[in-house]
Amino acid sequence: MDFITVQKATELILKETRDFGEEKIAFLQSAGRVLAEDICADRDFPPFDRVTMDGFAFRAKDYVSGCRTFNILGTQYAGEAAVRLNQKETAVEVMTGTPLPGGADSVIRVEDTTVLDGKLILPDGQEVKKNIHYRGIDRKKGDVILKKGHLLKTPDMAVLATVGKTEVLVKSRPKVAVITSGDELVEVHEMPEPHQIRKSNVYAISEHISNLCETTDHFHITDDLEETTSKLQELLTNYDVLILSGGVSAGKKDYMPTAMEKVGVEKVFHKIQQRPGKPMWFGKKGEKVVFALPGNPVSAFMCAVRYVKPWLEACFGLQPKAEHAQLGVEVTFVPKLSYFMQVQLVNDKGVLKALPNEGHGSGDLANLSDADAFLEMDLREGSLYNEGDAFQVWRY
Amino acid sequence: MDFITVQKATELILKETRDFGEEKIAFLQSAGRVLAEDICADRDFPPFDRVTMDGFAFRAKDYVSGCRTFNILGTQYAGEAAVRLNQKETAVEVMTGTPLPGGADSVIRVEDTTVLDGKLILPDGQEVKKNIHYRGIDRKKGDVILKKGHLLKTPDMAVLATVGKTEVLVKSRPKVAVITSGDELVEVHEMPEPHQIRKSNVYAISEHISNLCETTDHFHITDDLEETTSKLQELLTNYDVLILSGGVSAGKKDYMPTAMEKVGVEKVFHKIQQRPGKPMWFGKKGEKVVFALPGNPVSAFMCAVRYVKPWLEACFGLQPKAEHAQLGVEVTFVPKLSYFMQVQLVNDKGVLKALPNEGHGSGDLANLSDADAFLEMDLREGSLYNEGDAFQVWRY
Repeated sequence: MDFITVQKATELILKETRDFGEEKIAFLQSAGRVLAEDICADRDFPPFDRVTMDGFAFRAKDYVSGCRTFNILGTQYAGEAAVRLNQKETAVEVMTGTPLPGGADSVIRVEDTTVLDGKLILPDGQEVKKNIHYRGIDRKKGDVILKKGHLLKTPDMAVLATVGKTEVLVKSRPKVAVITSGDELVEVHEMPEPHQIRKSNVYAISEHISNLCETTDHFHITDDLEETTSKLQELLTNYDVLILSGGVSAGKKDYMPTAMEKVGVEKVFHKIQQRPGKPMWFGKKGEKVVFALPGNPVSAFMCAVRYVKPWLEACFGLQPKAEHAQLGVEVTFVPKLSYFMQVQLVNDKGVLKALPNEGHGSGDLANLSDADAFLEMDLREGSLYNEGDAFQVWRY
Repeated sequence: MDFITVQKATELILKETRDFGEEKIAFLQSAGRVLAEDICADRDFPPFDRVTMDGFAFRAKDYVSGCRTFNILGTQYAGEAAVRLNQKETAVEVMTGTPLPGGADSVIRVEDTTVLDGKLILPDGQEVKKNIHYRGIDRKKGDVILKKGHLLKTPDMAVLATVGKTEVLVKSRPKVAVITSGDELVEVHEMPEPHQIRKSNVYAISEHISNLCETTDHFHITDDLEETTSKLQELLTNYDVLILSGGVSAGKKDYMPTAMEKVGVEKVFHKIQQRPGKPMWFGKKGEKVVFALPGNPVSAFMCAVRYVKPWLEACFGLQPKAEHAQLGVEVTFVPKLSYFMQVQLVNDKGVLKALPNEGHGSGDLANLSDADAFLEMDLREGSLYNEGDAFQVWRY
C-alpha cells in the first residue's frame, strides 16, 4: 500500500508551514487575528489607587485612634483629579471607580455609614485599608499584557483600547484559491440535469477557513488537461494556497495529477489511511502549497477540518489545545483505517461524550448538519472501540 | 437584601425575549444566522445511483451465472447522461461520482480487475451489488434537511448550495446601542490624564455579541441628568436594545436610574447575588430592553457573556447546549454570592477541568486574556467547592 497514516500526513503537512508576513490593522478589526507584536501596559493598571465601592475615604490612623465622627470635605468624582484629604479626622465621599483622595488610605461602604448634621459617623469594628484597588497591582507600566503570537479574543479588544492601541500589528493571512473540477457540476442558481449536481463543497470549505484567510476565491476547472494546466499555473502565481476539491482519484478524466506535475508542483503524499478522505493529495511548489481534497462532500469537508485549518493555524504559530471526547457507546470498525466518525457531543457533568451520528457515508452531505464534530478513532487492531475510550475530536 | 439570585435574574431576562422578524439574505452571508424557513431537498439525494469507486459497472446476474469476461462498452464520465448497459456480459468503465450506467447493478474497483485484449476480466469471489450510493438514500425529494430555527454552521453552506438556495430566509437581528458613561473616560486615541482612563468595556462587549446583532453602535453620555435623559430617549427610539456600561451604582453622579425612570423604562431588577457584576440592572419599555451593566471591566464583560448573549440567542429561539467543567482544585469562597470564577479549561481525556485564574478582581481587565471562561459556582452553604464538582462554564 502506498498510503500513509494520519499521523504521518499531519507531520508532512505541518513541515510545510509558511509565514505570510505582518500587517497593521485597526484594533476593532483584530478579533480572531494573531498578534505580531507584544502589547505592553502604557502606564500602571490601574493608573491610580482606585476606589472599589461607593462610600467614604478616610485615614486608617484616625479610625484606629478611636475617631468615629469625621468632617466631610467634599466629593471625589470620577473624571476629576484626586482631591486631598489634608486634615485629620476628615473624610471625602467617593464613588466606585474614582481615584482615592490623596492622604486617604481606607474606604468604607456607604451602606455601613451614617451622615448626621453633615458629619460622617462610622460604626465600630470596621476593617481599615479596604476597598481600594491599588495602582499598578494588575500590571506595571511596561509589562507585557498580550504576547506576540496571542490569538486575539473578544476581551482583548478592551485591553487594546485601554493601552491606546488604535492600530495593532498582526500576522498576515494567505490568499487562498478554492477550486472545483468536474463537468458534472453546475452553479447554485442553475437547475441541474438528472446527471448533474450543484457545486457545494467549495462553500463549506471556504466558510470553514475564511477567518484564517485574506481571501478565499472560487474557481472552476473543466475536465480538460490543457485548461487544467494553464489555470493551475495562473493560480499558483496569484495565490498562496490552492485547495482543490475532486479530481484526485485515478479516474480517466482526472487530469489533476498530470497537470500538477506539468506545472512543477511536487507531490508530498497521496492517500491517507483513513475514512473518509482516503484519496487526499498534498503537494508544494516553492512557497506555495496545494491541498487536493477528495470530491465527496463529507470527505472534502473532513479533510478541510482535520488538515487545512490546522495547517493555517500552524502557519500563524497557533497551537490550539486538543479536545478529546469519550465514546458514548461501543463501536466496531473493521477496515484498517483511522475512522473519522461523525458524532454529536454531549457534556455530561464535565465529561464530554461522543455519540455516533454516522449517516450514509461520504456522500451524505446533509448528515454533517446533524452532527457536531468528527471523532478521530485511531487505527486499531481488533477493530473494537470501547465505550469510554477517549479520542481527539474535531468540531466544526 | 433587595438583590436576586442568578437563577431568578436569568428567568426574568429570558421572559423578555423579543422577535426581530425575518429577512432574506444571500446564502454565503448566512453562516452564524438562524433559519426562518425549512430547507427541503429539491430532488433526491443523491439524485442518481452514484458510483463510489473508480472501476467497472456490470450486471450481478452475469457474474453470478459464472461469467468472468466482459465486453467493455465504453466509459461513463461524470457530467454526462448515464449510458446504458444494454447487452448481457458487458461492462462500462466508471469513475467515483459518475451515475451508474442503466442496466448495471454492480461496481467492481479498478484495482481488482484486469483488462486483457480490450476485455474486462473479473476474479472469482467478488461480492456483487456493491460500490453504489443509491438514489435518494440520504434524503428523498421534499424531505426537510435543515429545520426552521437551525443555527447555520459551515457545512450547511454546502447543503444550501446543493438544493439551489441562493437566498435564504433567516431571523433578523436587533440594532443595539452600546453606551458608556462617566466623565473619566477618554477615547482610545487620546492620552489620558492621571485620573482618566480610556474607554474599553464597550469594545469587548460589542465584539462578544456582534455576530448576533445587526449593528452595535457606540455612544457616550456625560455625567449630566438632562443630557442623559434626552440621549436615552433618542436611543430608545432608534434601537431595539440598549446596553449601558457603568452608571448603575448608587454613586452621586450616577444619573442613570433617575434618567431611566424619566424616559419610562421600567426596572425589572437591580442587583444580582453574584460576584463580579452585583450592580447589574435590567429594564424594559414596551418592545425595548435595557441592560445596564456595571462599570468594572470584568463585571461588565461577565454580564455580557452570562446574560446579554444568552438573551440574544433566546430571542432567535436558540437553546445552546450547556457546557460543564469539573473544578481542578478545591476552592473556598465565603461571600453569600454566586461566584463567576475566571478559569482556564483543560480537556484531560474527555474530562473538562477548570483551573482557577482569578486575577485581582473586577478591575483586572488584562486577566481575562489569560483565562478561557467563567465558571458559574452556585451560592453554597459552607463555602467549600470540592475538586471534581461540576459547574456550568461560560466560554468567551
